Amino acid sequence: MTGIVVQNVERADAAVVDGLGACGVATVHEAQGRSGLLASYMRPIYSGARIAGSAVTISAPPGDNWMVHVAIEQLQPNDILVIAPTSPCEDGYFGDLLATSARARGCRGLIINAGIRDVKDLTDMQFPVWAKAVFAQGTIKASLGSVNVAVSCAGAHIEPGDVIVADDDGVCVVPRANASEVLKKAQAREANEEEKRARLASGELGLDMYGMREMLAEMGLKYV
Amino acid sequence: MTGIVVQNVERADAAVVDGLGACGVATVHEAQGRSGLLASYMRPIYSGARIAGSAVTISAPPGDNWMVHVAIEQLQPNDILVIAPTSPCEDGYFGDLLATSARARGCRGLIINAGIRDVKDLTDMQFPVWAKAVFAQGTIKASLGSVNVAVSCAGAHIEPGDVIVADDDGVCVVPRANASEVLKKAQAREANEEEKRARLASGELGLDMYGMREMLAEMGLKYV
Amino acid sequence: MTGIVVQNVERADAAVVDGLGACGVATVHEAQGRSGLLASYMRPIYSGARIAGSAVTISAPPGDNWMVHVAIEQLQPNDILVIAPTSPCEDGYFGDLLATSARARGCRGLIINAGIRDVKDLTDMQFPVWAKAVFAQGTIKASLGSVNVAVSCAGAHIEPGDVIVADDDGVCVVPRANASEVLKKAQAREANEEEKRARLASGELGLDMYGMREMLAEMGLKYV
Amino acid sequence: MTGIVVQNVERADAAVVDGLGACGVATVHEAQGRSGLLASYMRPIYSGARIAGSAVTISAPPGDNWMVHVAIEQLQPNDILVIAPTSPCEDGYFGDLLATSARARGCRGLIINAGIRDVKDLTDMQFPVWAKAVFAQGTIKASLGSVNVAVSCAGAHIEPGDVIVADDDGVCVVPRANASEVLKKAQAREANEEEKRARLASGELGLDMYGMREMLAEMGLKYV
Amino acid sequence: MTGIVVQNVERADAAVVDGLGACGVATVHEAQGRSGLLASYMRPIYSGARIAGSAVTISAPPGDNWMVHVAIEQLQPNDILVIAPTSPCEDGYFGDLLATSARARGCRGLIINAGIRDVKDLTDMQFPVWAKAVFAQGTIKASLGSVNVAVSCAGAHIEPGDVIVADDDGVCVVPRANASEVLKKAQAREANEEEKRARLASGELGLDMYGMREMLAEMGLKYV
Amino acid sequence: MTGIVVQNVERADAAVVDGLGACGVATVHEAQGRSGLLASYMRPIYSGARIAGSAVTISAPPGDNWMVHVAIEQLQPNDILVIAPTSPCEDGYFGDLLATSARARGCRGLIINAGIRDVKDLTDMQFPVWAKAVFAQGTIKASLGSVNVAVSCAGAHIEPGDVIVADDDGVCVVPRANASEVLKKAQAREANEEEKRARLASGELGLDMYGMREMLAEMGLKYV
Repeated sequence: MTGIVVQNVERADAAVVDGLGACGVATVHEAQGRSGLLASYMRPIYSGARIAGSAVTISAPPGDNWMVHVAIEQLQPNDILVIAPTSPCEDGYFGDLLATSARARGCRGLIINAGIRDVKDLTDMQFPVWAKAVFAQGTIKASLGSVNVAVSCAGAHIEPGDVIVADDDGVCVVPRANASEVLKKAQAREANEEEKRARLASGELGLDMYGMREMLAEMGLKYV
Repeated sequence: MTGIVVQNVERADAAVVDGLGACGVATVHEAQGRSGLLASYMRPIYSGARIAGSAVTISAPPGDNWMVHVAIEQLQPNDILVIAPTSPCEDGYFGDLLATSARARGCRGLIINAGIRDVKDLTDMQFPVWAKAVFAQGTIKASLGSVNVAVSCAGAHIEPGDVIVADDDGVCVVPRANASEVLKKAQAREANEEEKRARLASGELGLDMYGMREMLAEMGLKYV
Repeated sequence: MTGIVVQNVERADAAVVDGLGACGVATVHEAQGRSGLLASYMRPIYSGARIAGSAVTISAPPGDNWMVHVAIEQLQPNDILVIAPTSPCEDGYFGDLLATSARARGCRGLIINAGIRDVKDLTDMQFPVWAKAVFAQGTIKASLGSVNVAVSCAGAHIEPGDVIVADDDGVCVVPRANASEVLKKAQAREANEEEKRARLASGELGLDMYGMREMLAEMGLKYV
Repeated sequence: MTGIVVQNVERADAAVVDGLGACGVATVHEAQGRSGLLASYMRPIYSGARIAGSAVTISAPPGDNWMVHVAIEQLQPNDILVIAPTSPCEDGYFGDLLATSARARGCRGLIINAGIRDVKDLTDMQFPVWAKAVFAQGTIKASLGSVNVAVSCAGAHIEPGDVIVADDDGVCVVPRANASEVLKKAQAREANEEEKRARLASGELGLDMYGMREMLAEMGLKYV
Repeated sequence: MTGIVVQNVERADAAVVDGLGACGVATVHEAQGRSGLLASYMRPIYSGARIAGSAVTISAPPGDNWMVHVAIEQLQPNDILVIAPTSPCEDGYFGDLLATSARARGCRGLIINAGIRDVKDLTDMQFPVWAKAVFAQGTIKASLGSVNVAVSCAGAHIEPGDVIVADDDGVCVVPRANASEVLKKAQAREANEEEKRARLASGELGLDMYGMREMLAEMGLKYV
Repeated sequence: MTGIVVQNVERADAAVVDGLGACGVATVHEAQGRSGLLASYMRPIYSGARIAGSAVTISAPPGDNWMVHVAIEQLQPNDILVIAPTSPCEDGYFGDLLATSARARGCRGLIINAGIRDVKDLTDMQFPVWAKAVFAQGTIKASLGSVNVAVSCAGAHIEPGDVIVADDDGVCVVPRANASEVLKKAQAREANEEEKRARLASGELGLDMYGMREMLAEMGLKYV
């Protein structure tokens, strides 16, 4: 089951991908029923980036980054690399040379359930990465893994071609088949939020705006 | 014991609160006998904020942020929200809408032993938060908790109305009854530090400035 | 074995130290055979610093920073302080007063397998620190430790006078005796990288540039 | 605020203490409204012990076990020692000699938010301990702490004289003033459980026994 | 996507399930290409149990165990319950009453990426559980989840009906469709091991038995 | 620096090794000045074993156990294997086949800063192991490491031939050159403890036996 590179991966519609990116992680995650988040330890190496793209996945042996070179060839513009070691590992699989190569293929960023290095260079390049650790530990190129197979990454199940959304709140995966429906729901939530924000800013309470007082009293909330 | 909202909470004097904020966490913590710190995992979502305020506490069920709406009504200007789930949880209880509402009531910031989301928006608003995790995971509104009761938060005991001081070094709680005494001691420490800093900057050694050499020799320190 | 201050510590050549600093952690670590990294939890308190220097080591009792004062007297210009508690501890051994004193002796920064405080002041001073935690918890001055003895620090063995390199990727130690040889290898790697970066940026694949395709096929990699 | 030994601590009624012990942690915790649990990392050093007793608390400096000797003098028969370091620490404060001394005073066991050693001897003695870590790291006797003051221990607030219940499920604290009321509720729960257990064992479903089907359908549960 | 109970779940052949159980986790994991392990923090509550069964999965809200009652009705003899909260949680979803009910349906054990309680009773019943934590923290019954949907559990992707194997080494999942093929490979490994064990026990070295010396020399291993 | 096997390693005297084993971890650690402990996460796979032996060290790539075969040839009777991956890893490097082979060479046990598997078989064989994790994750045999070189293992510096002592309290390393001196101090401590234990068991307080009352009063301890 290892040593496979899947070449024809269907991607979601580019407009849908970009639309999801515009909504951001928190909204997209809510819109798809509070699912799809990667673990909270997946942190951006610098603040302020928000990206979306189609997943090119790498199932990698721990401490071996050979498959990253293989995966880069499979990148299409606006894809996002997703690296998932097959056992827990924080070695630094990826640095500025690989980022240079990935960017030349149009890659928008990296999600890695392991370590990252050259973070200053990556920041200077504005190549965004969400990682489990910053760790310079070098890797080897000795064993095969697979590219574009389903992976478990930081607690989430990711299929190649799924949509990845990442920003300062973390990382969320949207199954490709659901992407346009989730986008609609996410945009509806956004439209809705603007008005709420204005009312709350003016001092209206959520208790009143959402009509919560009666339900809370019914459940027994007591003011003393 | 759950489902209670305490409405009349005594606060410390506003000048004392602000004085403690000016001293900062490290100094206040020392001034009250090296106590009151919350766990080191409570980190600010952005650098540079320093706040102090009176605690409005929330004892919340894990993954349920209903009580935050209830607590916001109890906020007075310059208060700080303190959210403590009743079991370990890193869900994202709080985002930019709630921050907008809390700010409209004069709230100075949030201390939360759980997750936070919309960190980019909160940073843009300059609404400071100290949290255990950044995690977009949505919460529900299904169960009661309590507002303005004593809570255990990240290793510290916090009573409603206690003074919270928070900056880049973390979070410290000062029991309301001790606040003005602690302020005096903190200010004395500060006055004292300026002169020490100048002497150390000029090259004088702590060994000499604090007269430590004799005691060290007595205890057996050997130079080889 | 405790209570010793070693005064005559041999340092590496200043040009070698500075050369290693210019190469940075990831390159130096690779150049010495992928060894010498401290654990990934050792993070800088602010981004962008890159330093190298000779280690002045402190073996300190947990929660007791007395030996820091003793060690500061042993600092020579361009040294780096290394604090290793003898059991796991995240107390805040070091703040802006000690940094002021250390800087007055020419110290370039601090590596500490424990906590740090006054991080805003340290950032304003641009005194770089790599630490396990930010934690204001005060320490005492009651027990002896040792200065300039071998220590285990965040998973690495450090001898006094070893070269410490630290940047946004973490911290690496180079044994003094190997420093000039490691520098040569590190500089060779750097020279080499520039050309690679240009070729990858132009779209050439690592698979081709490194001639990996044949070996991958031999090992059984299958494109499907 | 440090360096205090409170000598006259009120204990709960012995029969109440023993009754709570007989109910065990899970039941007592439920009976007092799902509160009072210490963190899940507090594990017994051997299986099968179940104890209850009145807390004699120790607020100890990190890595300093001097106050344990002071606290042992304050022990009355059937008390439980509770050791809470003032900052995170896993040093081994307590071993078989201290256990021998504590047992001679009638102590029923130890709760420690730090390390423990001599676990084989303690197991042979059947002196039960719930600890954060097993770690032989020796401590010193250099600084004062306090005995029988309120402490934060593994996430719980414990006052001297509070009732501690501990078994294979962990550790729970019951405020002394609530102890007899909590006991009544706990015993009511127990009486109730026997019948439920028999019905469930016979194959009756919780869905039916608790009458949940209607509510679940109302909330929208769908069988497909 | 929440609030669904899938009733018709295909199971693997009973003989295949039992065969996998006989092989154990380490062998099964190797036989399916070193995949399928759950995270190492999933530990048995007592030693010595080894089970295999078909997964009945529960996607549960954090701190809410209502769906466990729903899932128990879906259990068939020799099934294994798999509980995966939708965000990280260590609350005690399951205790001796639920175990009694599950056992009455023929359930062989529980895999839970959260907490467990009543561990002494469960041990006395010999109802095996692999859990993330022992924690008595009670849960509520307020929100819907789903039963027999795909879940991410402790780093593994589990579909309802997949085969779960669990023993003192941890937990492994085998996709239902691969179960009989994996069994064949696992049994082949076992047959093979008996002879190896005898040769190694007699003092033959792995270096010779596996013919490794030449390859090691070729790769440059040096004896000094 | 990798790919080396050092063959002539000096061991400590067998009687000294066995003497240290008889004293146990806590006593030996104290006797050598409270140093040499490995991290507290190094736990035995079963209770009750106490061993001592000379270290045969393995510096292994993460997830690659090839060097274990190489190291087994270097084992002499009563040696202990010490496996230290070069970056954090919890893969299962070692199981019952390797234990069978190691035992055939007279090996007394294993210390591994990584994972272990086949724990039931190892327990049945009574082959003691102290490990960071129980994890069945298989390893590969693709890269060289080194045997009998200095390693950093779970926070301790270990040279080949150093004496390892391990029991239920954890693991301690004694540098070979110090072994007989440490043994003398450890035995002196033990002789001393018997009398103390008897006095404490009879009810004498440590406060009196160690004459602490005066010093405590001097330091300001107050009884209230």
